[in-house]
Amino acid sequence: MLQPGLMMDRPLLISDVIEHGAAQFGDVEVVSRETHGPLFRYTYAQCAARARKLANALKHLGLEAGSAVGSIAWNNHRHLEAYYAVSGSGMVMHTCNPRLHPQQLIYIINHAEDSVILFDSTFAALVKGVAPHCPKVKAWVCMSDAANMPAVISATQGVDNVLCYEDLIAPQSEQFNWPQFDERTGAALCYTSGTTGNPKGVLYSHRAIVLSAMAGCMPGSISLSPKDTVLPVVPMFHINAWCIPYAAPMGGAKLVLPGPRLDGASLYELIETEKVTVSAGVPTIWLALLHHVEQHGLRFSTMRRTGVGGSAMPAALIAKFADEYDVEVRHGWGMTETTATATIGCLATKHMNLTPAEQHAVIAKQGKSVFGVEIKVMDENGTTLPRDGVSQGELMVRGQWILTGYYKGETSPLVDGWFPTGDIATIDASGVMQIRDRAKDVIKTGGEWISSIDLENVAVGHPAVAMAAVIGVKHPKWDERPLLFIVRKPGQTVEREEILAFLTERVAKWWVPDDVIFLDALPVGGTGKVQKADLRKQYGGVFS
Amino acid sequence: MLQPGLMMDRPLLISDVIEHGAAQFGDVEVVSRETHGPLFRYTYAQCAARARKLANALKHLGLEAGSAVGSIAWNNHRHLEAYYAVSGSGMVMHTCNPRLHPQQLIYIINHAEDSVILFDSTFAALVKGVAPHCPKVKAWVCMSDAANMPAVISATQGVDNVLCYEDLIAPQSEQFNWPQFDERTGAALCYTSGTTGNPKGVLYSHRAIVLSAMAGCMPGSISLSPKDTVLPVVPMFHINAWCIPYAAPMGGAKLVLPGPRLDGASLYELIETEKVTVSAGVPTIWLALLHHVEQHGLRFSTMRRTGVGGSAMPAALIAKFADEYDVEVRHGWGMTETTATATIGCLATKHMNLTPAEQHAVIAKQGKSVFGVEIKVMDENGTTLPRDGVSQGELMVRGQWILTGYYKGETSPLVDGWFPTGDIATIDASGVMQIRDRAKDVIKTGGEWISSIDLENVAVGHPAVAMAAVIGVKHPKWDERPLLFIVRKPGQTVEREEILAFLTERVAKWWVPDDVIFLDALPVGGTGKVQKADLRKQYGGVFS
Repeated sequence: MLQPGLMMDRPLLISDVIEHGAAQFGDVEVVSRETHGPLFRYTYAQCAARARKLANALKHLGLEAGSAVGSIAWNNHRHLEAYYAVSGSGMVMHTCNPRLHPQQLIYIINHAEDSVILFDSTFAALVKGVAPHCPKVKAWVCMSDAANMPAVISATQGVDNVLCYEDLIAPQSEQFNWPQFDERTGAALCYTSGTTGNPKGVLYSHRAIVLSAMAGCMPGSISLSPKDTVLPVVPMFHINAWCIPYAAPMGGAKLVLPGPRLDGASLYELIETEKVTVSAGVPTIWLALLHHVEQHGLRFSTMRRTGVGGSAMPAALIAKFADEYDVEVRHGWGMTETTATATIGCLATKHMNLTPAEQHAVIAKQGKSVFGVEIKVMDENGTTLPRDGVSQGELMVRGQWILTGYYKGETSPLVDGWFPTGDIATIDASGVMQIRDRAKDVIKTGGEWISSIDLENVAVGHPAVAMAAVIGVKHPKWDERPLLFIVRKPGQTVEREEILAFLTERVAKWWVPDDVIFLDALPVGGTGKVQKADLRKQYGGVFS
Repeated sequence: MLQPGLMMDRPLLISDVIEHGAAQFGDVEVVSRETHGPLFRYTYAQCAARARKLANALKHLGLEAGSAVGSIAWNNHRHLEAYYAVSGSGMVMHTCNPRLHPQQLIYIINHAEDSVILFDSTFAALVKGVAPHCPKVKAWVCMSDAANMPAVISATQGVDNVLCYEDLIAPQSEQFNWPQFDERTGAALCYTSGTTGNPKGVLYSHRAIVLSAMAGCMPGSISLSPKDTVLPVVPMFHINAWCIPYAAPMGGAKLVLPGPRLDGASLYELIETEKVTVSAGVPTIWLALLHHVEQHGLRFSTMRRTGVGGSAMPAALIAKFADEYDVEVRHGWGMTETTATATIGCLATKHMNLTPAEQHAVIAKQGKSVFGVEIKVMDENGTTLPRDGVSQGELMVRGQWILTGYYKGETSPLVDGWFPTGDIATIDASGVMQIRDRAKDVIKTGGEWISSIDLENVAVGHPAVAMAAVIGVKHPKWDERPLLFIVRKPGQTVEREEILAFLTERVAKWWVPDDVIFLDALPVGGTGKVQKADLRKQYGGVFS
């Protein structure tokens, strides 16, 4: 007969994370770019104390366990305090993506039933627009001190109940007894910015967040230790900033929050002045950073590692980071539905004797599932495909921090207990996963599949190309054929024939796009990803 | 109202650990020293396959979920397979310490109600002696192939039901559906080798082991990644080898198991040939290893880190590893009651500008509690003492992998939800814990405390001293006074007066021992620790 172990039965709670930071890394710094410009700095001990003050303030506003608190905010120290105060109190931290269309923002605030919204002064005008449509929000708290409150909002201008964060927490006690409850309780809520239909909410549990943060600390993942200083550029409104705000105090790393300044120059300055050793963000951020660094002939003094996800990192960028700047890319994969990282790659002992180019090819894949997550690929008939690195199918995930269903959703998205990701992938014999395409972006031509991502990666390898996107366009004979969009680098004049010749040398003949369209910019959505749906709408006619 | 998160609810089970190894690090090696000499090597995928065969074999023997399976074995691949097969099947893996007195071994086998015992051929004679007193054991399985079965045991020699491990698993399938059950189920059992009374069992849950193994992978702890090769010298019968056999496949590290050969020459050879990057063990092992390395003018080509616990690592040894061999010591603390590591130290960003000697002083302490464990020190009245680095009290621990009570124990050892460790410690403002002494070893003199460990550490700093131990001896005026035991290094002739003069220069006058006794060796117990109780029995009279 099974017998219980004789171990203490304590829930994994988010309040434990910040209290661990306060108790064991109380003197380690958090540095935060204020929205109005200057750097703010304090310690995990002080962060915990202010999180407790905020928890008291929320209670004082009449909120209780189970209430939802929204945020429309940059990565900064007040947002960090809210992460801990809200979830630690048994409330739900709902991080809103300010890049959503206002109608979507109204939808998610009402759908989540947010009682309070914390917002950065940057978004005052946005709040002014949405507030009248969110009748259940009791208070709109501007994450600012009194001196820097935005003028655009006040009761006389149509938004009731605007409060100032610093004034709100000032009178509160630094003591707060974090409630103890089931670790499976909802802690945070994030909506997918789906391109069709309303956004769908994913309700993360304390357990899921704590476990994925532990996994994120591991040396084969982002790797966070007391020797590290970590800069999450990935937004705190985007999948919990891949749980780095939780992982940093767990691992004892100094935390640097960039606020609203995400341009290459600002990030570079922050990396150098704060001695950042590891960063994390989407490829477009790193493109801009490297552009700045190259343009000014700069070096990274301390940064040695960067976590990349959100979309595939082009091999050329991996090579540039590694070969020219001695920065190791940790290329991962995850989505709103997976809390944080589901897979990530890093070089292993067996790769040490490979050439740099061979090593970059390893890193260009999305790596292995971290402990706590299982992966497989499945064909359209529900058959699990072999791990041969060739068989393409839909990536299925299962594990400790994978969703079971959407918030207030009526139907389960799971297939036999696994979450179908909508991504097309391969897995090789050593367990390395590679995203080949989004299921909806893959180009089906003559009964075969062309990966739009693979084509884009080859195209951006051309020295005159800044960005590339490929969509499938209906074709009377082949079903679909690829159409390539190119954004040239500044001052470059490359034309259609040269691009097609470049591709012809590098891909199968039937992969070569039927046409090339040059644009000044690609349409980019709320999370920084290229919106292929927009390209399809405008250009997706029929090839003749 | 609290609402559950919408995350998959999957138990943290030990079977998931080896299946993760098989699926994601299936080609990573496990290298094992066979008891009869040669090296055996295979992969995590093959290890998982053989663990499933063993699980089938145990079922075939009539065992079921909840059954206990004992082991009397070195660190080797069959022991590793048992770790996963037994716990993964919902049975309890009871690791027996072969260095226990046979009467104690009989006691724990019967107390745990072991149905099967797996033993190394080394221990055949031991098994022959204990088997007749363990009537509930259905089978004694020698962890060997048929060719290397020990002659000493057979049914005709008084031990019934001796089986050969390889013969047992050979006919079994490599397929096994690991059962799913509550993660709080008992997974492994280890008895403390207490010096008074019978050994007491600690029943680890799946959850405790999985969480502590995750914590052990972290870069601030042992740090295990796909770039690492780890050599746990700490025995698998001693607190789960600090959970490294679980952590290695989680983190993707190659695992090297040293079998019975724990001498300096054998360990050095293994470290070099297998390119070990990180090792773990008690200080006495590293003393012997460094002795061998020094004597032969050797270097470590790949080893860069070693985890040390079990007893305090002398500062001189930390310095030698770091300064002369470029090996970073990660000094930790834990006990049978804490599953694996509870605290561990590593250098942080703020230490980078310290001198080597100052850095060694940081590492000489036992570090910070890892996420999942809380620590505090308490005085005799139950008052929590300040974190000032000076206030000494009993170290109390609480957390995810700390016991609540002993196996079949009737009284709870906990005090207000915390486990009192019996160790005297300080904690400083930055959360660093330092063990000052065992509660029973501290010397109470004139109303003050002298740490026997501190005195021993100073004494082993003398170049002629190999080992030192200090006990308190009753004194009519001062209550107790310290008595120092010294084991000289080979060929050394240092005498009492020189030792006392050496100490007088380095410790407070009232700390200087009243006498020095030179011994050829110190009495050492089942886990390699000096048995001060034996010294007290023989030498602990009364000072006049």
